[in-house]
Amino acid sequence: MEFLSDDILLTSQLAKDLYRSYARDLPIIDYHCHIDPKDILQDKKFENITQLWLYGDHYKWRLMRNCGADERFITGGADDFQKFEAFARCLPRCIGNPIYVWCHMELKGYFGYEGEINGSMARRIFDFTKEKLASSEFSVRNIIRRSNVEIICTTDDPADDLSAHIQLKREENLGFKVLPSFRPDRAIHVEKKDFPRYVEKLQAASGVKIDGIESLKEALLKRLDFFHRQGCKVSDHALDSYIYRECGDAEAERIFQKAIARQPLDELEVEKFQTYMLLFLAKKYAGYGMAMQLHYNCLRNNNSVMSRKLGSDTGFDSINSSRSPVKLARLLDALYEEGCLPKTIVYSLDPNDDKLINTIINCFQSEAVGKLQHGSAWWFNDTKCGIASHLATLAEYSVLGNFIGMLTDSRSFTSYIRHDYFRRLLCDFVANQVNNGEYPNNKENLKTLIDNICYYNVKNYLF
Amino acid sequence: MEFLSDDILLTSQLAKDLYRSYARDLPIIDYHCHIDPKDILQDKKFENITQLWLYGDHYKWRLMRNCGADERFITGGADDFQKFEAFARCLPRCIGNPIYVWCHMELKGYFGYEGEINGSMARRIFDFTKEKLASSEFSVRNIIRRSNVEIICTTDDPADDLSAHIQLKREENLGFKVLPSFRPDRAIHVEKKDFPRYVEKLQAASGVKIDGIESLKEALLKRLDFFHRQGCKVSDHALDSYIYRECGDAEAERIFQKAIARQPLDELEVEKFQTYMLLFLAKKYAGYGMAMQLHYNCLRNNNSVMSRKLGSDTGFDSINSSRSPVKLARLLDALYEEGCLPKTIVYSLDPNDDKLINTIINCFQSEAVGKLQHGSAWWFNDTKCGIASHLATLAEYSVLGNFIGMLTDSRSFTSYIRHDYFRRLLCDFVANQVNNGEYPNNKENLKTLIDNICYYNVKNYLF
Amino acid sequence: MEFLSDDILLTSQLAKDLYRSYARDLPIIDYHCHIDPKDILQDKKFENITQLWLYGDHYKWRLMRNCGADERFITGGADDFQKFEAFARCLPRCIGNPIYVWCHMELKGYFGYEGEINGSMARRIFDFTKEKLASSEFSVRNIIRRSNVEIICTTDDPADDLSAHIQLKREENLGFKVLPSFRPDRAIHVEKKDFPRYVEKLQAASGVKIDGIESLKEALLKRLDFFHRQGCKVSDHALDSYIYRECGDAEAERIFQKAIARQPLDELEVEKFQTYMLLFLAKKYAGYGMAMQLHYNCLRNNNSVMSRKLGSDTGFDSINSSRSPVKLARLLDALYEEGCLPKTIVYSLDPNDDKLINTIINCFQSEAVGKLQHGSAWWFNDTKCGIASHLATLAEYSVLGNFIGMLTDSRSFTSYIRHDYFRRLLCDFVANQVNNGEYPNNKENLKTLIDNICYYNVKNYLF
Repeated sequence: MEFLSDDILLTSQLAKDLYRSYARDLPIIDYHCHIDPKDILQDKKFENITQLWLYGDHYKWRLMRNCGADERFITGGADDFQKFEAFARCLPRCIGNPIYVWCHMELKGYFGYEGEINGSMARRIFDFTKEKLASSEFSVRNIIRRSNVEIICTTDDPADDLSAHIQLKREENLGFKVLPSFRPDRAIHVEKKDFPRYVEKLQAASGVKIDGIESLKEALLKRLDFFHRQGCKVSDHALDSYIYRECGDAEAERIFQKAIARQPLDELEVEKFQTYMLLFLAKKYAGYGMAMQLHYNCLRNNNSVMSRKLGSDTGFDSINSSRSPVKLARLLDALYEEGCLPKTIVYSLDPNDDKLINTIINCFQSEAVGKLQHGSAWWFNDTKCGIASHLATLAEYSVLGNFIGMLTDSRSFTSYIRHDYFRRLLCDFVANQVNNGEYPNNKENLKTLIDNICYYNVKNYLF
Repeated sequence: MEFLSDDILLTSQLAKDLYRSYARDLPIIDYHCHIDPKDILQDKKFENITQLWLYGDHYKWRLMRNCGADERFITGGADDFQKFEAFARCLPRCIGNPIYVWCHMELKGYFGYEGEINGSMARRIFDFTKEKLASSEFSVRNIIRRSNVEIICTTDDPADDLSAHIQLKREENLGFKVLPSFRPDRAIHVEKKDFPRYVEKLQAASGVKIDGIESLKEALLKRLDFFHRQGCKVSDHALDSYIYRECGDAEAERIFQKAIARQPLDELEVEKFQTYMLLFLAKKYAGYGMAMQLHYNCLRNNNSVMSRKLGSDTGFDSINSSRSPVKLARLLDALYEEGCLPKTIVYSLDPNDDKLINTIINCFQSEAVGKLQHGSAWWFNDTKCGIASHLATLAEYSVLGNFIGMLTDSRSFTSYIRHDYFRRLLCDFVANQVNNGEYPNNKENLKTLIDNICYYNVKNYLF
Repeated sequence: MEFLSDDILLTSQLAKDLYRSYARDLPIIDYHCHIDPKDILQDKKFENITQLWLYGDHYKWRLMRNCGADERFITGGADDFQKFEAFARCLPRCIGNPIYVWCHMELKGYFGYEGEINGSMARRIFDFTKEKLASSEFSVRNIIRRSNVEIICTTDDPADDLSAHIQLKREENLGFKVLPSFRPDRAIHVEKKDFPRYVEKLQAASGVKIDGIESLKEALLKRLDFFHRQGCKVSDHALDSYIYRECGDAEAERIFQKAIARQPLDELEVEKFQTYMLLFLAKKYAGYGMAMQLHYNCLRNNNSVMSRKLGSDTGFDSINSSRSPVKLARLLDALYEEGCLPKTIVYSLDPNDDKLINTIINCFQSEAVGKLQHGSAWWFNDTKCGIASHLATLAEYSVLGNFIGMLTDSRSFTSYIRHDYFRRLLCDFVANQVNNGEYPNNKENLKTLIDNICYYNVKNYLF
């Protein structure tokens, strides 16, 4: 196959047919990402490809550090061209890395540039894309429209006023929806230094004086209700590891007061408080019909020096590996027992958990199609093998046809190409089943499967 | 390849040749399953496919719950056709799931029906199979005979009187053997509520008054001896996680008395008692030349509500993930040290353990060919990728040619198709080695390999 | 493909081209192995293939035990032909095991013998190779030269006088370099019974009276300096599991004195002492520009009886599975924080750790190309699937182009064939990327990638 062929990742005629006939042209629902709604509101434009690709993408920064690039060219004072050139010089060594293919697919798909990215082509690509980026075609809104995006769910703090969302909602002819997600990590991570300050922030945002666990919950509820009224359909929780430890109101109160007084908490107290808050919120999500996302097993800010220098989300996180699946089962069981288990999407950054997660969540399926979901391959695992393995595991250990599919989890506006990447791998997987004689070549079934996983399942699940 | 082609899973001419010339027609020794010997004794017949497929198969129930089917159609009051129709409606979404292929292979292999199972074909398939099931061809014994089964090992409690086995043994012209397995879980799981009641049951069955650890052991020994005389060749233990903690007679006595008095036990006591009993029994198995099966890492009854409603084995279990391989090594070492390590077959429901298990058990190989075995891909892992990965791991980390092969672990009488499924994957694996130039195309060697793994290894190992 | 075809493992024309044009003829830098430099000094010859293959290779012993061979034919008193015959008889069952292919590749590559190894050919092969081994072509030095080896790094204890290395350094016309590696395990594993005796040995070797932690460190430093002057470029640490626990000088002193006085240490003390010593040495390695190898997750001497009989490294080790990646992150962070993180190569015997390790070490990349490395597939994992999976993981979770490549980790002089095995798999991986359209068919890039991973990266990294 030619480099970057239109048939890339499609290894049989049937795979190509499924992709072209069904998958390719379906709208995108990107139900979990980290783009800034203000950029959409302002219909931001990028001066050059460095701003588009390298200003916030710590995936790429890690590759550059691995290749020995000086931090000056990564997060430092080098100019935009120098930074792009430094990145371009690294890429040829990144054979097999998803960044390698994504970058080339983005250049081809959005800019119509099909060449190879490397140090010697850096100037030409930089200039070529600079010119393109100046055109209106490359405003944030137009990129989104060209990407056939129907709905974007951003990731938002409960204290956020959602002003960008509110204004975007009023706009006619926007052509797509931008909805908030409710991510109350800072209200739950009682062990973090900024918890007391965050409580003040939440107090201001909610108008509820927070002096104890009850008022904290009340404040969150007010914000949740507000988010719900702004169209929020999904919440999100980042959890280092699996947690579940019972905790009554009185104990939660005690831990809250200790945290506010900046007294040190032990691990047990932290886990209790987190469990308490998570159960509380989960029940409310169930009440609103909202889905709960649980992101497990990420170890953050491993490099103290660099994290102090550059802050969070700068490329110093890793997979964690806390194997206490019992706790996931207990958490879901506690909610099921009370009849208020919300729709739940579970992700783990440790791919060793994939099979286990499927077998656990399938103990709690009922009422709805695929009510509990094993979320798509996440972050470091969002690779060709990672996605393929996630799909195979879903198929073998669960029901692939009920899967709500792909999301970008991205901070970048050209990352929608990842949906295309996913759809190709999905069509290839399905085609292989047929080509192997393990599934009938029944066009109607195949269309339904592909359509559902690419679009309709998530639409029915969340909207 | 056509859907359900006779060549399914066989991806090369050599694979087809190996399968047709060697694997396909060998008898089946199903050395671990959960069918009820009384059904064989009574030569049970099934009124319809729902009774055959859906009355006890919680694998299928899970798929139905995942697809949002109401419990009425799963374990509830809907009629048999409604239940089958509900199941048939789910199947097309289950692309890539072993149930999907197995069901179609069973329909084709046993009923001669080659079409696709889905909601709209449900009535036709239900009626078609109903008629077939009425014929004598579909009595339990005839299904077993048609499946070319030579030996079946059921799973039995030490307190069981084995009356069905005893009567079956007397039958001439049965055409196959039905042997008991010794599964003393209830005598070991001292932490379970029903332990005291079980002790009474065992007392009645053994005729030994059980008032302490010594009489408990004596009662078990009497039953083990009885099982042995009934042809029992294999025992079985279900263990949530890897265990090993030394425990003397006095301590075991103390824990036993606490349990009988219904006093709560801590985790340490439970592990000590289990280790104590397991070591005791293992030595006796060694003495009888019986094999010991150890099934690790299953987390049971995760969903409290449903488990209360439907009991155990109803679809609410999952993979567990307790990673203490040291304990497996210690257990085997303790037995080796005393010169009484029995033939041992280790399974873990967590496939992450597969490589580790092979490297641990191979520290204790001696005396016999493949004395310690990594049992075939178990339960949730009994999938195409799961079996292929198990075979590849055996080959790379151990000696594939010594493997005792497949079992059904099933409650259903048409599950023998899984042996066919396994044999195809095995032939494909072996053929690939030859086609890749990594193994010589030596017919004699290839025949020996296939014959042994499908049939002779387990025959020599157990019988 | 023919058995043992020259194209083995190369599944496309491009893979064959890459292998023949670039990979095949590059020199070998075997930067981690366990061969005895004295054998090179004496230019040892082998009387027969049993001496070459079976005298010290516990990989092969394990296969033989698995096949039920009596210990007499493994480590006992049987004669050399009997031992070879016993091994040859086992091999045909070992389809898919790397030993199977390696043995045949060695026979073909070094002896020009292309037939199959089995019981009936044992005599012929034994005689054929015996004659060959008698020729000067098969002296240790000539084997190394024929293998195109440029540098060998042996594994040496700090108390070793390196006399063989020193004498080899003086030899003209040797044609390759033999350098020591610094492996201070016995100085760190304070929990081992022989620690006090080892301290005496180290005292004698260093000329430093060791009466406390400071003099222990001084003695090690003297030896490290000596090793460095003998060309040592790399150190090595064997660690059962991930460790990190802070420990001050006073506490280290206290633990040291307890150990010397043969008082029992608890797990905490052991971990503290190991962390203390590891941090101390790591900083020194950084100062010397030496690389630090960390080998994690091996469980040793699992079979007490056999380990007592045969000692260590006789085939009774296994994968361990201690999942505390946080500790690896903390160790690297502590060193980074002090600005003295050396070049580090991390290996884990548990392949479940592979992705995790890549994401952790990439939090600490800076200054140099691939400063932290995920070492090549180790020991039990040094298989076709193991190497392929390691490469795929490196590519997807890190930067494959920066990889320092293969090592033998072997005690045998014909194991250099494993570099050939690795290079074929590497070329196949790279070719697949190109053939799939995921990487451009740019000869220059491809040559650079292959050349670097096979040879130049490790050369630049260490020498």
